[in-house]
Amino acid sequence: MLRERLAFFGALCAILVSINLVTADSNECELPPGLREEIAQYQPVVDSIFQHIVSGEYAGKTWQSLLEFTDRFGPRLTGSKQLEDAIDFAVQEMIAEGLDNVHTEEAIVSHWQRGREWAELVEPFQKNLPMLGLGKSVGTAPEGIRAEVIAVESFEEFENFTADQVEGKIVVFAPAWVGYGPTGRYRYDSPSVAAKKGAAAVLIRSMTPFSIGTPHTGTLSYVPEVPRIPAAAITVEDAMLLLRKYRRGDKMVIHLKMDAMNLDPTISRNTIGELEGHTFKNTSVVVVSGHMDSWDVGTGASDDAGGVFVSWKAVTFLKAMGLRPRRTIRAIYWTAEEQYLEGASEYERQHSDGEKDEFNVFFESDSGTFEPTGLDFSGNNDAQCIFAEIAKLMTSYDEFTFTEGSVGSDIGNWVRRGFPGVSLRNKNENYFWYHHTEGDTIELEDPAALDRITALWAATAYVIADLSIDIPKDVVSYDSK
Amino acid sequence: MLRERLAFFGALCAILVSINLVTADSNECELPPGLREEIAQYQPVVDSIFQHIVSGEYAGKTWQSLLEFTDRFGPRLTGSKQLEDAIDFAVQEMIAEGLDNVHTEEAIVSHWQRGREWAELVEPFQKNLPMLGLGKSVGTAPEGIRAEVIAVESFEEFENFTADQVEGKIVVFAPAWVGYGPTGRYRYDSPSVAAKKGAAAVLIRSMTPFSIGTPHTGTLSYVPEVPRIPAAAITVEDAMLLLRKYRRGDKMVIHLKMDAMNLDPTISRNTIGELEGHTFKNTSVVVVSGHMDSWDVGTGASDDAGGVFVSWKAVTFLKAMGLRPRRTIRAIYWTAEEQYLEGASEYERQHSDGEKDEFNVFFESDSGTFEPTGLDFSGNNDAQCIFAEIAKLMTSYDEFTFTEGSVGSDIGNWVRRGFPGVSLRNKNENYFWYHHTEGDTIELEDPAALDRITALWAATAYVIADLSIDIPKDVVSYDSK
Repeated sequence: MLRERLAFFGALCAILVSINLVTADSNECELPPGLREEIAQYQPVVDSIFQHIVSGEYAGKTWQSLLEFTDRFGPRLTGSKQLEDAIDFAVQEMIAEGLDNVHTEEAIVSHWQRGREWAELVEPFQKNLPMLGLGKSVGTAPEGIRAEVIAVESFEEFENFTADQVEGKIVVFAPAWVGYGPTGRYRYDSPSVAAKKGAAAVLIRSMTPFSIGTPHTGTLSYVPEVPRIPAAAITVEDAMLLLRKYRRGDKMVIHLKMDAMNLDPTISRNTIGELEGHTFKNTSVVVVSGHMDSWDVGTGASDDAGGVFVSWKAVTFLKAMGLRPRRTIRAIYWTAEEQYLEGASEYERQHSDGEKDEFNVFFESDSGTFEPTGLDFSGNNDAQCIFAEIAKLMTSYDEFTFTEGSVGSDIGNWVRRGFPGVSLRNKNENYFWYHHTEGDTIELEDPAALDRITALWAATAYVIADLSIDIPKDVVSYDSK
Repeated sequence: MLRERLAFFGALCAILVSINLVTADSNECELPPGLREEIAQYQPVVDSIFQHIVSGEYAGKTWQSLLEFTDRFGPRLTGSKQLEDAIDFAVQEMIAEGLDNVHTEEAIVSHWQRGREWAELVEPFQKNLPMLGLGKSVGTAPEGIRAEVIAVESFEEFENFTADQVEGKIVVFAPAWVGYGPTGRYRYDSPSVAAKKGAAAVLIRSMTPFSIGTPHTGTLSYVPEVPRIPAAAITVEDAMLLLRKYRRGDKMVIHLKMDAMNLDPTISRNTIGELEGHTFKNTSVVVVSGHMDSWDVGTGASDDAGGVFVSWKAVTFLKAMGLRPRRTIRAIYWTAEEQYLEGASEYERQHSDGEKDEFNVFFESDSGTFEPTGLDFSGNNDAQCIFAEIAKLMTSYDEFTFTEGSVGSDIGNWVRRGFPGVSLRNKNENYFWYHHTEGDTIELEDPAALDRITALWAATAYVIADLSIDIPKDVVSYDSK
């Protein structure tokens, strides 16, 4: 259960909660002899990378590629032809760009389909309830579920209800937004919590601090042995309306119809392209990553095509600049992240033999690609000391800051097991306004911001991949995680 | 056509475009002898009205009533039982509050029903297109319309298309937002413009400067003798996606299904309650108003239950304070505003005999009830002079400002015919984010802001209704309008 819960917090696609550990002050660090001087010598190449990407021949190209990609393939739900077409396209493009070892690695993934769906308040007055079924939810019977409503604000409040009171009802959970981690568990846990008392279905308040009548989807998790009941997100506004009415004693009836289906698991692919190291090819690899799949709403531009493209183009532009580091920089576009990190988990399994040698550092961008503000580093004290020294190379660009923090959704498992990790920080204060909605589109992406992210990503990955030493790590083996 | 167009701009529920006429500077005005001194003597009663409503016993009550009303009746589409129930409730409540001459006056109104509806991009990839059918739109055949797409940004661009190119297509109009007046005509005119060339249906970009994947409904207007084709609003994001794809030459197919129906016209009611004048009862009436109906999305809290409640409670609180002015203050809650001012138009017809004597000034709040910033006055130069003098009584509250301007949707016809008019100005910069969407709910309303509006409304209406003279007017008769 703890492992599940940890995985869940990792899976909560993408807010990075900064946890202040000891801040690495490089003045207090004992760096290996000569390393400080070695790192300082990268300043000209870092400057050149920024110049080429931010104001030179590559300026605007990350955004342009992202635009063409999201316009061409639209949303990329796991199991859809659109996702697999997008993966094929990425492979072809990376080959055309001359990247090394371009290929895919298969993963067995969930295959959920939304189908047609709607919800309607039918008593005491008629009102459409805009909704999105939760990922992996079962559907209703063809005629839908027409049932009386119970509405609560919290699990604690729901504990006061007996099974007799809940039996056959549609339960509305309307928790106040206090952040994606703590509020997110309602999306994840509500269906089984309510089903244990015999509920017919669950509707949750969408996970967002701000709404214009917009529902937010996302995955749920059914507890084994508990009946699987349909679950959907409704708008903040409607959830609060239903909660107020219930508390006043108004009898309410909702008609919920969902054609959702969980089909047999299918095969998708993690997508890989490299800038191969001149000395180390398949050892001490520096991974830069984002996830290729999205929900079936909007076009998943922010979650997470943006992360894919800054990782992809960082490698492409380094290659085009003729910069080949000592170690390999491997771009990975994970599949089925939204289905609970299925692609990344499969990759971790497949690479668990010898991974201590295979990997050095994992980068991930999966919390928006708005205006960049810096990077979060995770890792042991020695790693932090080196990261802090590298960070000095970047601080002249914008006002980037670099801190220790917990990183990662797809790379979370590696990071928790002691691999050094790097995550993007950006001005994503409004990220959850759009997260998992029809509003996650190219309108959220800015060409200049993407350029700066790609440059920061490319420069940092390049320096790490080219250093004379690996970034130190304390890796717990895959089997004992 | 001009009249239709004028009516349309009036009908465009609610942005008030300030037109700077000559600003009335009361120092340059020749007020009737003694009037300046007379108006100044109202300062203590104005102070008392503000004190009671903003910080006294009525503080918070406008919002509380608005909350209970929108929670109880939900959205109030013309023709719905919910609207008529809400009207019955208002009548009962106003009688209970002791208002005078509480009654309704019937109006024959449109009866449109939305029914189930959806739109889906099916080629070249699959994507749901969140949408809202436009008011008064016909529906599709039961199986929907499955057709190829043409997308344009403007009517001018559409002129380049031949009937051969348009025949049987779904036409997407994606005009850039430049304001509700100029952009609004696409909602109104697009269906017939496209139908003239044989289009099967129309989808328009929602009328808003900002979107989180939110569609905005609103009424269309079919041109007589042109085939009536289904029309709906899609999100800004999807409209732009379709436009970009069309311009790139991508073949697109959309499947549109709308069960919308125009039923036989039905009867609704304008709702009236008064604070009867102690001297003039049914002459020189000061009307304060908002509209009772809404679209069938959200709960119409901002459009326009807010306008109803500040008008209603202004009268209620004056009555409760024992303030009875010389003339009658008549609260009117128009019906069927969203159907093209049908309730107000019927009222105008019914009162056209002798209306020059019956009415003095018309107030309307229908552009949001956010933080108030002042009032817009319309009327002839003499009226402006008096308004400017009255405005001095209010300027100590917040930082209210008072300007000449064009006012009104429901009261627009009277104002254009020369009756003095008063409209609320408020911090409604984001009004169109929510307008005609599922996001138009009580969350937009603030208790303290509503108190200040109700106070401003009550104090201004009271002074106007109690003055020794009528506000001057130059009225063009109803028949010659």
